Amino acid sequence: MAESKKLHLTAFMRPVSLHTGAWRYPGAYADANFNLGHLKSFIQKLEAAKFDAFFMADHLAVLNMPVEALKRSHTVTSFEPFTLLSALSVVTERIGLAATASTTYDEPYHVARRFASLDHLSSGRAGWNIVTTGNPESSKNFGRDEHLEHSERYKRAREFYDVVTGLWDSFADDAFVRDPASGVYFDPDKLHVLNHKGDDLAVRGPLNMARPVQGWPVIIQAGQSDPGRQLAAETAEAVFCSPRDLASAKALYADIKGRAAAAGRSREHLKILPAAFIVVGDSAEDARAKRLKLDSLVHYDSAIASLSVALGSDATGFDPDAPLPVDQIPDTNASKTSLASVLKLAADEQLTVRQLAGRYGGYSGLAFVGTPQTIADEMAVWLAEEAADGFTVVFPFLPQGLDDVTLKLVPELQRRGLFREDYEGTTLREHLGLPRPENRFFPKS
Amino acid sequence: MAESKKLHLTAFMRPVSLHTGAWRYPGAYADANFNLGHLKSFIQKLEAAKFDAFFMADHLAVLNMPVEALKRSHTVTSFEPFTLLSALSVVTERIGLAATASTTYDEPYHVARRFASLDHLSSGRAGWNIVTTGNPESSKNFGRDEHLEHSERYKRAREFYDVVTGLWDSFADDAFVRDPASGVYFDPDKLHVLNHKGDDLAVRGPLNMARPVQGWPVIIQAGQSDPGRQLAAETAEAVFCSPRDLASAKALYADIKGRAAAAGRSREHLKILPAAFIVVGDSAEDARAKRLKLDSLVHYDSAIASLSVALGSDATGFDPDAPLPVDQIPDTNASKTSLASVLKLAADEQLTVRQLAGRYGGYSGLAFVGTPQTIADEMAVWLAEEAADGFTVVFPFLPQGLDDVTLKLVPELQRRGLFREDYEGTTLREHLGLPRPENRFFPKS
Ligand SMILES: Cc1cc2nc3c(=O)[nH]c(=O)nc-3n(C[C@H](O)[C@H](O)[C@H](O)COP(=O)(O)O)c2cc1C
Ligand SMILES: Cc1cc2nc3c(=O)[nH]c(=O)nc-3n(C[C@H](O)[C@H](O)[C@H](O)COP(=O)(O)O)c2cc1C
Repeated sequence: MAESKKLHLTAFMRPVSLHTGAWRYPGAYADANFNLGHLKSFIQKLEAAKFDAFFMADHLAVLNMPVEALKRSHTVTSFEPFTLLSALSVVTERIGLAATASTTYDEPYHVARRFASLDHLSSGRAGWNIVTTGNPESSKNFGRDEHLEHSERYKRAREFYDVVTGLWDSFADDAFVRDPASGVYFDPDKLHVLNHKGDDLAVRGPLNMARPVQGWPVIIQAGQSDPGRQLAAETAEAVFCSPRDLASAKALYADIKGRAAAAGRSREHLKILPAAFIVVGDSAEDARAKRLKLDSLVHYDSAIASLSVALGSDATGFDPDAPLPVDQIPDTNASKTSLASVLKLAADEQLTVRQLAGRYGGYSGLAFVGTPQTIADEMAVWLAEEAADGFTVVFPFLPQGLDDVTLKLVPELQRRGLFREDYEGTTLREHLGLPRPENRFFPKS
Repeated sequence: MAESKKLHLTAFMRPVSLHTGAWRYPGAYADANFNLGHLKSFIQKLEAAKFDAFFMADHLAVLNMPVEALKRSHTVTSFEPFTLLSALSVVTERIGLAATASTTYDEPYHVARRFASLDHLSSGRAGWNIVTTGNPESSKNFGRDEHLEHSERYKRAREFYDVVTGLWDSFADDAFVRDPASGVYFDPDKLHVLNHKGDDLAVRGPLNMARPVQGWPVIIQAGQSDPGRQLAAETAEAVFCSPRDLASAKALYADIKGRAAAAGRSREHLKILPAAFIVVGDSAEDARAKRLKLDSLVHYDSAIASLSVALGSDATGFDPDAPLPVDQIPDTNASKTSLASVLKLAADEQLTVRQLAGRYGGYSGLAFVGTPQTIADEMAVWLAEEAADGFTVVFPFLPQGLDDVTLKLVPELQRRGLFREDYEGTTLREHLGLPRPENRFFPKS
């Protein structure tokens, strides 16, 4: 019998959590943004649970919300990903280390170099989450008044990828002969000068790095627009996406894998890992209560502003502790999908305005909230029905919410044969079941 | 009695050494460029010897010499400084961690962020070696055909420094109140928006980092031209320079400290640390023999090319094993200072053409070659005569040349009271005797 398909799990990390109320949750490490000790303990727990990777998100600006909301959020400052992951590489041995790097506000030579260096430092555990940077405020920190236009961003991203991967291939894997007798350190026939001149980038090369241990660090992509999916299909080996439910996840899965196949790539070599907010409880009610408690920690001022955005109209006049007054909500010109999903959620979960606001101010994406058994059931369905190859796990609060996953959910998944009992390889590529790319300038034969 | 003045010592690191023949020296770790284990052992030895800092040089291009010389050199590829130093921060506790970062080919927002992150990770041990990038080949890796012109580079560097230090001051030291009760994570009155718009740079800010532990990481500068010295005088807290002898070092020392005083700064808060190549032997003869052996490991093809450059005329026709044929050497239009110093060296040390070539192909800057006693004597003179506040130590070969310094020279300096027996503080600023800068936007009052 063929071995059954298994899930991949990566941890989507903001040091205090992505949820803006999390720093106020009982037991939270509110100072984790600049506390290496806490981050060490998180990654070591994730490694003990055999996670594929620790993934560090990244943002290039502070001012992405009104100051009244901003001052209540722990999400805007934290360690920079490369420095943090390099430090964490030393206190771990197997878990993958994925950093986010922007193709819009960085240089391919720097990006190629830093990932190659992280891959060497970690003996082959680096991954690059390619983002084009969504926050338009970022442009102002890099000398531009306006954010680069969406299609321009993706066009540059595609070229940026070609340049970075080309730079990683500057030296053949066996270029460094280091023969003391002849005095030859490397074979110049195994050095390739890229000489890239494209629409957006001009980079001569070669990169001043030996080829990465993995050949190329694993390529990850998180965009969801049409050009985002196309970029993923052409380049990514893992996709962090955020479908809202099983049906839309299946459609997204089929779409991206279909595009990859159309681009001549193997469907197996592109893993779809939806972001999932996971709240584990001893009972369904316990899990739900934890989540409501967490959402209640988002200050009402920020929460109601987020709900207004989701509704497309002002919600500040509503009674916080009554149900959503559906008949007072106008139709919207903003996002009708968003409005519809607020209405559905309010009805499904019978939430008050305050609770709904906390949800939108906290985290409103795909969530699995339940016992280890019910969550494992759901994950098994997603895997079997080709909605996901695994998940990008978003922890509701830390450390407790992480411990709940590693100590309760993961053992349940392992019992069912849905998740590895131990690492089988040493590199991130091996964890994800991805081949090592050939050097495009120095093919093996 | 006032405590006597002490030396500061920083280690100038290329993983295999700066000397191009070092990878062939007996016992050398030829693969150290990408071997974290070796670098861990080096930095831990330097910390045990109480060095002020481990300093990682940086270069942004490979093609800076003809391929026939390039293929014999280990110096063009190695770990990138930020990733490496972040990893090393975890295996050390006290030693400073100085990274080189270019103001010509990077963005101030990125540079400010990475240093702030390294400073937080290391609890206040980061230092920034500001360089404008000397190697003109670098431009081609960053979309420019031509290297930015020298004075333009320094003009941009000065503005870059203002922006980076301004970004470090984005948050007051006590901005992060993290009060769960009121739900306020930081006080918005303690957040400053830089809004910099200058000749070369436009950066809004704020930086998405808490203020560094040291306020600002220590500012280091290594340029020697007139604008280089001026930049150092206005901004640097440590200067890595490369005078050739005691007299020129004294002149340089007086010049830079004088410029600093003229700019309204304290002479005490700018440490002059000349680069010194140190070869320790059991006897003067032993040290000299080690150096000759090392120089002989530079392949003659590269060595003679370097000698030709130093002479300003072709030396390839000379008998390698005879003395320099002084009467066959034409005057030069290149550097007359350089030609004169070759002639002086050939006479002083009575070197053959091959030996001279090895010197120029290997390392021809300031060197202390002798026993621990004679080297300590020399260093004491440099310190007493105000030629140096300490040294940027260049190891001839590793690990042996490093062990010779940490296990033989350092104890001799300690015995004489010329070097610390233990660290007195925990930050790089404290090791160097530098004050913590006030936040320019949030003065203490
Ligand atoms: C799981 C996940 C993680 C993401 N992480 C980041 C990030 O760290 N930095 C960032 O700028 N954008 C991040 N994004 C946003 C995407 O990169 C992208 O900008 C966004 O989905 C909009 O892209 P689109 O216009 O192609 O839909 C993330 C998205 C998802 C789903
Ligand atoms: C000890 C020392 C270390 C240096 N390290 C670097 C370095 O890591 N990267 C670099 O590009 N230049 C480095 N330089 C070169 C200087 O930054 C500078 O480019 C060079 O001295 C020429 O500058 P100038 O034109 O002002 O004289 C170093 C110089 C010295 C003396």
